Amino acid sequence: MYRTHDNGALRANNIGETVTLAGWVQKSRDKGFMIWIDLRDRYGITQLIFDEERTPDEVMKLAKTLGREFVIQVTGKIIERESKNANIPTGDVEILVEELKVLNAAKVPPFTIEDKTDGGEDLRMKYRYLDIRRNAVKEKLIFRHKVTIAVRNYLSEKGFIEVETPYLIKSTPEGARDFVVPSRMNEGQFYALPQSPQTFKQLLMVGGMDKYFQIVKCFRDEDLRADRQPEFTQIDCEMAFVEQEDILNAFEGLTKHLLKEINGVEIEQFPRMTYDDAMRKYGNDKPDIRFGMEFGELNDVAQHKDFKIFNDAELVVGIAVPGGASYSRKEIDALVDWVKRPQVGALGMVYVKYNADGSYKSSVDKFYDQEDLAQWAEKTEAKPGDLICVLSGDSRKTRPQLSALRMEMATRLELRKADEFAPLWVTDFPLLEWDEDTNRYHAMHHPFTSPKPGQMELLKTDPGAVKANAYDLVLNGNEIGGGSIRIHDRETQAKMFDYLGFTEEEAKAQFGFLMDAFTYGAPPHGGIAFGLDRLVAILGGQETIRDFIAFPKNNAGRDVMIDAPAKIDDAQLKELNLKVTV
Amino acid sequence: MYRTHDNGALRANNIGETVTLAGWVQKSRDKGFMIWIDLRDRYGITQLIFDEERTPDEVMKLAKTLGREFVIQVTGKIIERESKNANIPTGDVEILVEELKVLNAAKVPPFTIEDKTDGGEDLRMKYRYLDIRRNAVKEKLIFRHKVTIAVRNYLSEKGFIEVETPYLIKSTPEGARDFVVPSRMNEGQFYALPQSPQTFKQLLMVGGMDKYFQIVKCFRDEDLRADRQPEFTQIDCEMAFVEQEDILNAFEGLTKHLLKEINGVEIEQFPRMTYDDAMRKYGNDKPDIRFGMEFGELNDVAQHKDFKIFNDAELVVGIAVPGGASYSRKEIDALVDWVKRPQVGALGMVYVKYNADGSYKSSVDKFYDQEDLAQWAEKTEAKPGDLICVLSGDSRKTRPQLSALRMEMATRLELRKADEFAPLWVTDFPLLEWDEDTNRYHAMHHPFTSPKPGQMELLKTDPGAVKANAYDLVLNGNEIGGGSIRIHDRETQAKMFDYLGFTEEEAKAQFGFLMDAFTYGAPPHGGIAFGLDRLVAILGGQETIRDFIAFPKNNAGRDVMIDAPAKIDDAQLKELNLKVTV
Repeated sequence: MYRTHDNGALRANNIGETVTLAGWVQKSRDKGFMIWIDLRDRYGITQLIFDEERTPDEVMKLAKTLGREFVIQVTGKIIERESKNANIPTGDVEILVEELKVLNAAKVPPFTIEDKTDGGEDLRMKYRYLDIRRNAVKEKLIFRHKVTIAVRNYLSEKGFIEVETPYLIKSTPEGARDFVVPSRMNEGQFYALPQSPQTFKQLLMVGGMDKYFQIVKCFRDEDLRADRQPEFTQIDCEMAFVEQEDILNAFEGLTKHLLKEINGVEIEQFPRMTYDDAMRKYGNDKPDIRFGMEFGELNDVAQHKDFKIFNDAELVVGIAVPGGASYSRKEIDALVDWVKRPQVGALGMVYVKYNADGSYKSSVDKFYDQEDLAQWAEKTEAKPGDLICVLSGDSRKTRPQLSALRMEMATRLELRKADEFAPLWVTDFPLLEWDEDTNRYHAMHHPFTSPKPGQMELLKTDPGAVKANAYDLVLNGNEIGGGSIRIHDRETQAKMFDYLGFTEEEAKAQFGFLMDAFTYGAPPHGGIAFGLDRLVAILGGQETIRDFIAFPKNNAGRDVMIDAPAKIDDAQLKELNLKVTV
Repeated sequence: MYRTHDNGALRANNIGETVTLAGWVQKSRDKGFMIWIDLRDRYGITQLIFDEERTPDEVMKLAKTLGREFVIQVTGKIIERESKNANIPTGDVEILVEELKVLNAAKVPPFTIEDKTDGGEDLRMKYRYLDIRRNAVKEKLIFRHKVTIAVRNYLSEKGFIEVETPYLIKSTPEGARDFVVPSRMNEGQFYALPQSPQTFKQLLMVGGMDKYFQIVKCFRDEDLRADRQPEFTQIDCEMAFVEQEDILNAFEGLTKHLLKEINGVEIEQFPRMTYDDAMRKYGNDKPDIRFGMEFGELNDVAQHKDFKIFNDAELVVGIAVPGGASYSRKEIDALVDWVKRPQVGALGMVYVKYNADGSYKSSVDKFYDQEDLAQWAEKTEAKPGDLICVLSGDSRKTRPQLSALRMEMATRLELRKADEFAPLWVTDFPLLEWDEDTNRYHAMHHPFTSPKPGQMELLKTDPGAVKANAYDLVLNGNEIGGGSIRIHDRETQAKMFDYLGFTEEEAKAQFGFLMDAFTYGAPPHGGIAFGLDRLVAILGGQETIRDFIAFPKNNAGRDVMIDAPAKIDDAQLKELNLKVTV
């Protein structure tokens, strides 16, 4: 037994007790005749005091050698602190040390182990085990644990069974790239790591498990964008004998429970919006509805004059930025430059200042009079003092551009409050999306998603218009979950593969087992998967996921701490019947 | 909403209600004017009745077409059953069907979906989704879920934090073979899948997480023995500032909790035994102590006569088989043959019948008199009516041989009762074990295990005698968990690697990050890992793990359902800079 208490435990009512503590030296103040040390562990900080007059000489001497992050064990009596520290729970007491043992010395850490560290991202990742000692990271990992326990207990109480599906499965070229695993025992063959347990959870439904969930690692070999990880965690769920409404209710329940348990926020009912409405109102299929600035479509009130740019545009659309009428010319120019950045890609921006006195001043005063601009204000719900920003062009491009501006302005105006939670169901997603690279339609969700009843025929005439039984759960402008009602009969599934360009042989080779399963009594079923890393980050009031992952990889997919991936032995390669060609 | 109730829900007090149910046709009895169908789902079975006089004609007609495993939806009124079935909870009622919808037809399944199926192992694995519909499998998966929820809640309440460690790590040639994962983004380099999160959990201790656990998949590319899986699940745990005693107490607590929660069995305190004692008394480091037949060492009382075989033997050792004195000559000969099988490997067996009348009759009466044999009986604690079986030879071989016999006899005598639970801590494992293949010592547990205090020096003079701070938790003759107190200082760890034959460069390349971590303030720490598949099977009263795994692989490491592993596209190989050489 190395300790009688942890470093967050002791209070005034413990005064007089003799205790043994262990932990790390957070900091040491040596006044010569007196030394104070903050002793730290996961649970808190306890102040130690070494006093020339009351502490044995050797102990005093040893205490002077202690550096930051030394691991020590002390025994001593709890005494009342002279100057109490109201900021920490143990702030009323200190330990007058009688015995001291150095359990392990420590080199000076490469960055400070403080809430605000001087360590840059790269250094922190290389020494992640030191980074985790910092409250900022440690608390996030503990928070993640609390969320997963809450998820598991909620779903379990609702009759869901957590079933582990395999990690060594089969590669399917559809979708993102698989990580593959060469098999030594099956020469020349490979397993793949799952991008999700999709087919297995569907088979569990065919197998009568009725309600399944799993918190599970998934893998995608993608070129990493910022804040993406090659391995990530999903809350994966599936239910049998359900329609979309049942799924939405079940997982609205889960999300409400988390918001209440974890964040103390009660939300009555989640609003719902179709994909089409979300795109029309917010230019985005995961709108942040914590704030307004809804899109106002201006075609009707902006295409009747001689302004060719608007007249030629498929869509003229604007938002009202609260308080923006006071922006200087310079500020507005900067905004125009911002929307013209390649990441946004607008060709320009028209603006209207809706002055406090009710008058309008715009960049297109040459074309539009006050009456026109008043109509724009009405459409964008602008109030006196606002700035109306208008973009135009092809709808598919203009909407995301204006969405980017809307999000940027909300961030600048601090309207995206971390402690405010605005969930939203987005429903009726298109079944297919056009892929510019391959010049054909792909499954927007995945090839197992069912089209809305009666829309299968539309596939031939107007594929882009086919809506799916697919839905996303959006929280504060982030997609935290997405799912669909699946196809559950062989014929429809075969048609879908055919439409997506699979030959019969390919479909059979890759998904034959699933299509076979559908012929042996498959129930109607559907599900959802939550991105746990993202969900936890948002519940924790953050936008980046990295510090909610204990050992994340960098943007090149490397673990810089253990230095992986790495070369392997020739003997290993030979056993696997592999040759590296670089 | 496909149903108002599940098929296990309805009782007599629901009579008169109109309900909608959905599920699978378990069986159908067609008497022409009347049809009964057992409708099944995860929750139970409800009887449906179709009656010529009370059921609409079309419904009656459709009902006649339903085959086994069709998925249907019915609406009808709950009525009292004429002949009640006390064997099922819904046995008082049946549904008089008014509406019937076939949700999905089903081909005749390749084996019967019954508790006792006619399907062989291979067929069941190929159609695992049908196998899972059987109670025998379904209940085991639900049982597994209950165990994992109980584990998580117990550990969480005790302050353990579940932290997800990465799956894409680095290959280390030490130990079993790794599965590797080629990295596309880092040319010519590979990740490895973890054999366990060992180094990461140690780094979490260095990182101050204090108490960690994780239920996590692990991977080993071994030639599969029966009942081994290339991917398996561990309950992985680690604690900082602990000695062996702390770990034993913490996880005895967990195991007691499971036995009580899951099996309703209360056990006061788990017995403990050193590795040496376990080998001496049971010839086995994971003894089943649900029954006696402890080893009696007979050297003192068997090497004083002219029986050369015994006189030349390092060890003469016997067990008393209860009631075995009544075995016929033929039965005993069969026993001798059994121990001579190559899987056991004994050269022969001496036996002594301890007759009910107190006399002895042995296969070595030529050498030993009644007084000698009485002493053997005393040493083996034989009672009148028992059969004393004696093996001899080299201790290292003889003990396991006699252990095999002991287990075999216990099985035959039905002493290994599935509903009886006998946990046991085995402690003080050797640090090293001799490897015949490589002709050198290897780490018995792993290279991070610490030797007992003060024994590091013995490494030079008598390596085999060095004991480790290592322990196993044994349940009913199975190792369900194992762990150790780890080395936590760089110097000792470096010495250990050196001893185990790592060059300094190899140690640094493979475990440099861990040894570095030890220089930045590593606390004393230790842990344990439970094999979840095995633990769940044993708590479930079974010896084989396969049916507690939803989608197991066969002995060739194949998933025969999805037909993995498989060949991958040339394009995939090319992207990975790999060439297959077979």
